[in-house]
Amino acid sequence: MEITPRILKGFRDFLPPAEIRRKELVRILEDSFRSFGFVPIDTPLLEYAEVLLGKGGGETDKQVYRFNDHGGRDVALRFDLTVPFARYMAMHRNELNLPFKRFHINKVFRGENTQRGRYREFTQCDFDIVGTDSVSADLEIVLMITSAFAALQIPGVTVHISHRGIFNRFLQAHQVQDQSVEILRTVDKLRKVGEEETLQTLQTLTSPEIAGKTLAFIGASGSFQEILTTLESLAGGPCPESQTLREIGTALETLVTPGTVILDPSITRGLDYYTGVVFETFLKGAEGIGSVCSGGRYDDLVSLYSKEAMPGVGASIGLDRLLAGLEELGQLPGTTAAADVLITMQDAALTAHYHELGQRLRARGIRCEVYPEAQKLGRQFAFAERKEIPLALVCGLREHQDGTVNLRILETRENHQDLTEEQALEIIHGLLPR
Amino acid sequence: MEITPRILKGFRDFLPPAEIRRKELVRILEDSFRSFGFVPIDTPLLEYAEVLLGKGGGETDKQVYRFNDHGGRDVALRFDLTVPFARYMAMHRNELNLPFKRFHINKVFRGENTQRGRYREFTQCDFDIVGTDSVSADLEIVLMITSAFAALQIPGVTVHISHRGIFNRFLQAHQVQDQSVEILRTVDKLRKVGEEETLQTLQTLTSPEIAGKTLAFIGASGSFQEILTTLESLAGGPCPESQTLREIGTALETLVTPGTVILDPSITRGLDYYTGVVFETFLKGAEGIGSVCSGGRYDDLVSLYSKEAMPGVGASIGLDRLLAGLEELGQLPGTTAAADVLITMQDAALTAHYHELGQRLRARGIRCEVYPEAQKLGRQFAFAERKEIPLALVCGLREHQDGTVNLRILETRENHQDLTEEQALEIIHGLLPR
Repeated sequence: MEITPRILKGFRDFLPPAEIRRKELVRILEDSFRSFGFVPIDTPLLEYAEVLLGKGGGETDKQVYRFNDHGGRDVALRFDLTVPFARYMAMHRNELNLPFKRFHINKVFRGENTQRGRYREFTQCDFDIVGTDSVSADLEIVLMITSAFAALQIPGVTVHISHRGIFNRFLQAHQVQDQSVEILRTVDKLRKVGEEETLQTLQTLTSPEIAGKTLAFIGASGSFQEILTTLESLAGGPCPESQTLREIGTALETLVTPGTVILDPSITRGLDYYTGVVFETFLKGAEGIGSVCSGGRYDDLVSLYSKEAMPGVGASIGLDRLLAGLEELGQLPGTTAAADVLITMQDAALTAHYHELGQRLRARGIRCEVYPEAQKLGRQFAFAERKEIPLALVCGLREHQDGTVNLRILETRENHQDLTEEQALEIIHGLLPR
Repeated sequence: MEITPRILKGFRDFLPPAEIRRKELVRILEDSFRSFGFVPIDTPLLEYAEVLLGKGGGETDKQVYRFNDHGGRDVALRFDLTVPFARYMAMHRNELNLPFKRFHINKVFRGENTQRGRYREFTQCDFDIVGTDSVSADLEIVLMITSAFAALQIPGVTVHISHRGIFNRFLQAHQVQDQSVEILRTVDKLRKVGEEETLQTLQTLTSPEIAGKTLAFIGASGSFQEILTTLESLAGGPCPESQTLREIGTALETLVTPGTVILDPSITRGLDYYTGVVFETFLKGAEGIGSVCSGGRYDDLVSLYSKEAMPGVGASIGLDRLLAGLEELGQLPGTTAAADVLITMQDAALTAHYHELGQRLRARGIRCEVYPEAQKLGRQFAFAERKEIPLALVCGLREHQDGTVNLRILETRENHQDLTEEQALEIIHGLLPR
């Protein structure tokens, strides 16, 4: 009896073109992180539920894949890369050198609603600097974001930055700090629900006057330094937090292309977790998909597991969302060709010859596939075209005896006949993009 | 209340040096597969239990992480990459171009005994050619194995190859084909239990005469072609299966270094799954850890899900076992340095300058880390040494005003003073291995 082949809702198979692109994107990101001295780590997909959920509660719990294993242990699949990182730092802090910079790109699981392009298995890409509260680390995370997107060759990326502390001072100056959590959440939704609804909610939470001032605060405009001055005056004057932003803003003037990093006080990040700078990142033309890289500074990563505090700053790229955005913009990097050259098979008796030819081409940096059966050439050419392989080599008994090959450019159907292998290599190298 | 940070038995955290090596190894393998036209795929970690276990039964079932999800679905974590590949091919055969060559490197889960270096979460690396039963595909998998290990620059790798079909003919010739499963399993354990115990078990299963002949069969020695002739005579003469081996052996004479691929009739692979060529791969000097890459030809990948048969040939590298073997041999590839250069911080007022310097070095291909706090230089040098960073740049207020930097080679404690940035770059490029 046959079983119907199917996969779970919210989970995905990746066909080769999609997986080639994902891997290419991940490699570029990894190289970019490594160029800054961030190093990779990995943690188990499955952990003790207590370790992952101790802090959690609320919404996250219901979304977690949790069960009892063979030994009766209460276990769960990780739902993000932050909690495992906290557990990791608490366990391994003495084996690592602080300040510690790591990246982690891997899958996480959430059994949430699968509407609106959300998946139950998706890839996160986190990078953090922990064990320091220096402005240099805040600056470096911003630089890391802009450099990573530059490496991906995505034009029109803007990083929106703000500071939780200044907003808190503003709330204190107007004596609404007790509503801070609700106000933060309301402001965080501004982009989604619009100004009018935000104003109404803020009026309900505070007063018409403070609601108006809050909108003035989060809507401040001008250059980085102009906005900063507005914020300072609304928040009761300069403060250490505004000084941090000023230093970052000044340093960025020489470090990034103007307009790449924007001071945007409407960025607050809904989570209580953040205590300092916060940022979100948008793709020009695909702002609708939301932030593709978000993060901020936090006071203590390991509070759940240890008394010894560990401050840090970090950000996370949602790889699936980023890919969706790039696809929308037609800016997916790289090629999805299965190989550079198809070595066609004209005669099975020449099998060893085709594979020798393949090995010689590979030694010269050419990706090549040997067709495994002696079928009609037209069928083999069509096979190459469907796999986006741009070139085909043809060699029958006569060519083998003469020591020659024929090269076909599939797109133009142009044929180069009776080439020596060196001549063929020269033409191939001239035609390939890299 | 604090939670004790801990991980599940059989699961592992990877510290940066280990993860750097794993990623390096995976990249080399990926590049090697891509050079042959194998393309990557990915499948969900979690699947319907029925889809994964339909065929299984027996031992595997007990080892599978299986539970009911929020929607009451009976789900399981994948325990290998073969069953998901079969399901994938049954679902997507019309979207793919046959013959299809894929690789898949990812984690699998088995709740088995954790003794003897076995893990409950480990990485497999599978590669297969499906949709063809040609000898060319069999040959290519062998070539792929030797090329992948060559790319890893591991000396002394031998691929042991045999053919199930010839062994079956031998069993038929002696009318013991009904004991074939038991005999195959017995022979498969030869390496573990030794010749004497194997002979005893075979005598119990068959007769003293046939047991002796079986040992003669699996112990045949000489060159590839000599062994093949012995096997043919013991199995009742030449047959299509021995012809396949002969073609492969002849082709390999020009394709691989002599001695790299050995005809070894003691290789049978215990699994019923295989029907043609079978292979195992051993590291010279670390044979004790067993085969690091095994596989073979099968008649039908998708029989569980579809009536339309799909033959194929493939192999799997056990990444954890391979790494263990390489570590044992002291042959782990690559370096585990966190960066090439540490840009030390002498004065926090120069933070932007240090990051600018960092960006210029990165643009020239140098991995560099900026130390985020203005601490004592000795402490920053020690930090670099612990992270295997070989070089440090030092720049204080005076050097900044003069437009110079100092370069320190950490291993020798040699200092190059008052260099221009170009001079420093030249020295750095000269010192780095790549």
